Amino acid sequence: MTLKIGVIGTGMIGRDHTRRIQQVLAGAEVVALSDYTPEAARAVQADLAPGATVYERGEDLIAAADVDAVLVCSTGSTHEAYVLAAIAAGKPCFCEKPLATTAEGARRIVDAEVAGGKRLVQVGFMRRYDAGYVALKQAVETRTGAPIMVHAAHRNPTVPEQYVTPMAIHDTFVHEIDVFRWLLGDDYVSARVTFPRTCAASHAKLRDPQIVTLTTARGVVITTEIYVNCQYGYDIQCEVVGEEGIARLPEPMAIQMRLNASLQTAILTDWKDRFVASYDTELQDFIKAASAGTATGPTSWDGYMAAVTCDACVAAQESEGTAIAITNPERPALYA
Amino acid sequence: MTLKIGVIGTGMIGRDHTRRIQQVLAGAEVVALSDYTPEAARAVQADLAPGATVYERGEDLIAAADVDAVLVCSTGSTHEAYVLAAIAAGKPCFCEKPLATTAEGARRIVDAEVAGGKRLVQVGFMRRYDAGYVALKQAVETRTGAPIMVHAAHRNPTVPEQYVTPMAIHDTFVHEIDVFRWLLGDDYVSARVTFPRTCAASHAKLRDPQIVTLTTARGVVITTEIYVNCQYGYDIQCEVVGEEGIARLPEPMAIQMRLNASLQTAILTDWKDRFVASYDTELQDFIKAASAGTATGPTSWDGYMAAVTCDACVAAQESEGTAIAITNPERPALYA
Amino acid sequence: MTLKIGVIGTGMIGRDHTRRIQQVLAGAEVVALSDYTPEAARAVQADLAPGATVYERGEDLIAAADVDAVLVCSTGSTHEAYVLAAIAAGKPCFCEKPLATTAEGARRIVDAEVAGGKRLVQVGFMRRYDAGYVALKQAVETRTGAPIMVHAAHRNPTVPEQYVTPMAIHDTFVHEIDVFRWLLGDDYVSARVTFPRTCAASHAKLRDPQIVTLTTARGVVITTEIYVNCQYGYDIQCEVVGEEGIARLPEPMAIQMRLNASLQTAILTDWKDRFVASYDTELQDFIKAASAGTATGPTSWDGYMAAVTCDACVAAQESEGTAIAITNPERPALYA
Amino acid sequence: MTLKIGVIGTGMIGRDHTRRIQQVLAGAEVVALSDYTPEAARAVQADLAPGATVYERGEDLIAAADVDAVLVCSTGSTHEAYVLAAIAAGKPCFCEKPLATTAEGARRIVDAEVAGGKRLVQVGFMRRYDAGYVALKQAVETRTGAPIMVHAAHRNPTVPEQYVTPMAIHDTFVHEIDVFRWLLGDDYVSARVTFPRTCAASHAKLRDPQIVTLTTARGVVITTEIYVNCQYGYDIQCEVVGEEGIARLPEPMAIQMRLNASLQTAILTDWKDRFVASYDTELQDFIKAASAGTATGPTSWDGYMAAVTCDACVAAQESEGTAIAITNPERPALYA
Repeated sequence: MTLKIGVIGTGMIGRDHTRRIQQVLAGAEVVALSDYTPEAARAVQADLAPGATVYERGEDLIAAADVDAVLVCSTGSTHEAYVLAAIAAGKPCFCEKPLATTAEGARRIVDAEVAGGKRLVQVGFMRRYDAGYVALKQAVETRTGAPIMVHAAHRNPTVPEQYVTPMAIHDTFVHEIDVFRWLLGDDYVSARVTFPRTCAASHAKLRDPQIVTLTTARGVVITTEIYVNCQYGYDIQCEVVGEEGIARLPEPMAIQMRLNASLQTAILTDWKDRFVASYDTELQDFIKAASAGTATGPTSWDGYMAAVTCDACVAAQESEGTAIAITNPERPALYA
Repeated sequence: MTLKIGVIGTGMIGRDHTRRIQQVLAGAEVVALSDYTPEAARAVQADLAPGATVYERGEDLIAAADVDAVLVCSTGSTHEAYVLAAIAAGKPCFCEKPLATTAEGARRIVDAEVAGGKRLVQVGFMRRYDAGYVALKQAVETRTGAPIMVHAAHRNPTVPEQYVTPMAIHDTFVHEIDVFRWLLGDDYVSARVTFPRTCAASHAKLRDPQIVTLTTARGVVITTEIYVNCQYGYDIQCEVVGEEGIARLPEPMAIQMRLNASLQTAILTDWKDRFVASYDTELQDFIKAASAGTATGPTSWDGYMAAVTCDACVAAQESEGTAIAITNPERPALYA
Repeated sequence: MTLKIGVIGTGMIGRDHTRRIQQVLAGAEVVALSDYTPEAARAVQADLAPGATVYERGEDLIAAADVDAVLVCSTGSTHEAYVLAAIAAGKPCFCEKPLATTAEGARRIVDAEVAGGKRLVQVGFMRRYDAGYVALKQAVETRTGAPIMVHAAHRNPTVPEQYVTPMAIHDTFVHEIDVFRWLLGDDYVSARVTFPRTCAASHAKLRDPQIVTLTTARGVVITTEIYVNCQYGYDIQCEVVGEEGIARLPEPMAIQMRLNASLQTAILTDWKDRFVASYDTELQDFIKAASAGTATGPTSWDGYMAAVTCDACVAAQESEGTAIAITNPERPALYA
Repeated sequence: MTLKIGVIGTGMIGRDHTRRIQQVLAGAEVVALSDYTPEAARAVQADLAPGATVYERGEDLIAAADVDAVLVCSTGSTHEAYVLAAIAAGKPCFCEKPLATTAEGARRIVDAEVAGGKRLVQVGFMRRYDAGYVALKQAVETRTGAPIMVHAAHRNPTVPEQYVTPMAIHDTFVHEIDVFRWLLGDDYVSARVTFPRTCAASHAKLRDPQIVTLTTARGVVITTEIYVNCQYGYDIQCEVVGEEGIARLPEPMAIQMRLNASLQTAILTDWKDRFVASYDTELQDFIKAASAGTATGPTSWDGYMAAVTCDACVAAQESEGTAIAITNPERPALYA
């Protein structure tokens, strides 16, 4: 029994997921494609899924009788409408982040899913599927004692001029926001942002680096350095300090070299290489659950809470040094 | 187009490959199963491949019209006959190691494949698909300068009583024999074995540890410690020393812990965990090539050369301290 | 020419410095000893310096004609008076931290030394002499680009019941306060303290752990975790993030072990082992400068600024979450 | 009580030891200097020991009434005569390696010292005083279980043209020869040398690299790579494999950098930096024992056994691939 998938949005990530389903993963095939630019969809059809139908409108793809499940890979502002349509159609739906561009939009998805009474949405927070984070979570749950602090860093070598200060939250830190909620099994109650002097490599509209401090309901304090012009590489660090010990996210696998008076391992420079294996795992997980008519992994609620937290962090940027409270609405039983 | 695979031998590895094809990999399905113990094949059918046909005889499975390609996972003494049958049937065939129990047997397979004029056989030397060795090979080819020495270790925590000295070559070191030929793109010309004192944990018929020194045609000297009662874990080490620098195989991914006055990462204890990801990659590679009617990866010639080298190493064990010459027959053009 | 030293206070550190001068370092000898408990001084005399004279009063030791230089190793509350006396006598003086128990007291010492017109005081901030910090400073000055952030941790396995929250600043963090001023060549302008939930191993009057955020005049933000019940060991971590790269303090030298399914190096558990070599170096530096009639290394001004910063940090503890400004008085030319 | 030392040979190492005694170590002073080139001795006198007497002949220095102990730092061919003279004079003597240029010469020193009935000679095998080797020895004695194998490497970036194949033993490997005897508390019974292809950077009269295999009386097998044109740095590696685990010599302390897409620590390039701290420790040990009229540390017997083993290794180079037996004479009780 092969799951028939429709892909909305055939840009970089939509194309890549199509390749993944057609050539790497078991149990699914891409039977439908749609893009704002139809030629893009047809190019992916030609390259990767010759048997797929190309739809002009994503809504028609969602409605198509032979489409069992939907991947939403289009531009962020269109996510909410497509996900709501998939829920309305009762079809499992994998949605790349963000679930919606506003917390209110994400809340509407939560409400629709809850009204339907069963999980249909998986949000594309792929870090939860990274072997390193999975091992870290296990270590935190079994070896460190209860967590008290997290020290993290999210570093990019450079960013383009159009990357402005709030994007450090919405586009960059959002991954930490989700993965630490999952890692700790906890909710955030406040956010504070501290800005060191801005680095020389930054741009006019970007204060970089910054340090975000999140506090959780259980009193864990998480400090994360966000530094998107660090020059030296793409580097994700995370250390969890517990009652009895400390666990640290592994460095990506790399050959140890002795060369030119230096003992060295390579650091990645392209973010696309960092979590590449976790995309396979998250989508295989989606296929498995969707084949049973449901969804697993990061929920609409997780997507909503990420949006709420992002808003608080941007407010914290704007009121530099002041802690901004984060209110946690009651969690629906569907996401218990 | 889905490749239809028949699996001969449904013990641990045959069952695992069936699961892989059915649940993990793209482009293939298991349509036929066979085992010396038919109930074993039926159990795998029930658990993993309900649509597959169970055959009493492997020969019948190979001959079945709906079988496109064959996996030989049965006991080693049966490999040669099944592989020859698959070649005779013109069907791509993946054969777990050993290709045959004797060098002569492996040579017969080479000759049959050469007579047929195209590659049909892939031998299950999975290390070539391990991300660490792949990265090591790239480092050796691009960064260390030409290789001059290799220092390696193959350590198991313990072995059972029936594991005797020659098995350290045929069952253990055979992986290094193949992977270093591939890593260096070179052939062996001599083997020598040195025995330190035997460790206290060894058994009556096992001299453990031992150091095997292989020399290649280009003058690279490879020293490998084989220590199968090392107690502390399953540990594979490899360091290549070149004209300009040194590259080292990465440790398996592990969480770094600070705990109990120790900065530590876990070492594996079960060999099955060490190269688990490479089984997926090797079999996906087989599926891709077999779908095109051919084979890729480790060849019959590689299986034959491994058998020839194993024989020399066992002779070197028996004449402790003396170098045993390894003769390399002319390589058929098919394997150029 | 051998420098004749008088040691005031012959407890653990005074005894150890006496041993160092008598048995390890070149160019000095202990000729006078004094302690609040005269028997303690006589015991050190008997064990390590049979030729030394024991004085009942530290003031008499300072005044003794054959004493060229003074070590103040007595209890903290007595430091100010002894150091002032040494300055009055024109004798070089090495003073263990704290220079004085209040910022005002430290300021009096600064003023006295400035009035005298030459450096006579070295404060016992030994970390500046640690080979790791020295190498870190060099890396920060030559390789990372200008510093922007520092991430640090100061962890003790446990502390006794009498260790209360402000001691985390005065007894523990004071070392970071001094060494980061020196490392960055910068002054502090504000301090903030954040408290995660208190760890289970803490005591009634101790909020542990805590995170202190210092900001410097040049805009460097320093976050330091202080965790004095971390259980697993005594662990000092420091990472400096610069415009182009990151430098990290080395772990103490330790044997790498493969044992019991673990790749491990030992973490120290006793703080006395961590900077043991730096005590030799700082005191050798004192001997060299004192032999020339002056002082080098950490100044009275450094001791005074440490006291000022400690006061701000304790105020920051008391007003949890609020940034406390740190005022930097004008630096006398003597300490330029 | 200050030990009065005479230094014979004031080249690089003799000058450095003089500085050490005068400026770094406790309990000794240099009162006499001698060199084949008297101006060299006078230059050291002027720079470091203005109170010392310069002697034209080493024999006169040894005989001088105010010389308590002797350092032999002259060219190797003169060591034997000076050490014998010091023994004859009953004065403790520290001799840089080699103790003598032949095994017979070293044996004459052993016999003279034994005839005198007490230890007077310390040989300058400084590695035994390196903190890393000391920690390694402790790990081998307490944590790895009884040793079975040692894997080692001695790598130099380059060597000059006059460095010929036997010098890889006498000048380079001699350090491993001594330190492994000490580390294992064992004696050698055979040596074998294997030559890979010679590296491109080598010279006409040098086969480089080479692998020396030593076997000990207890059956430990030690494989050491000697590679003196490795280009990338000066690198000393040592791993001891025991019954229960493995211990590895630490890398020298270095700052961990994240820079230019690389996680890196520096590797030394100058051998003089590698064991610099151990020179202090070995000489302090000499001063302490000599002050009591005797000697400690590496003995004449150790120097003799190093010479015997060097001879066997050179014979093993000449009969490439063949094991050369090493005969161990009976050890005099003085060295039990």
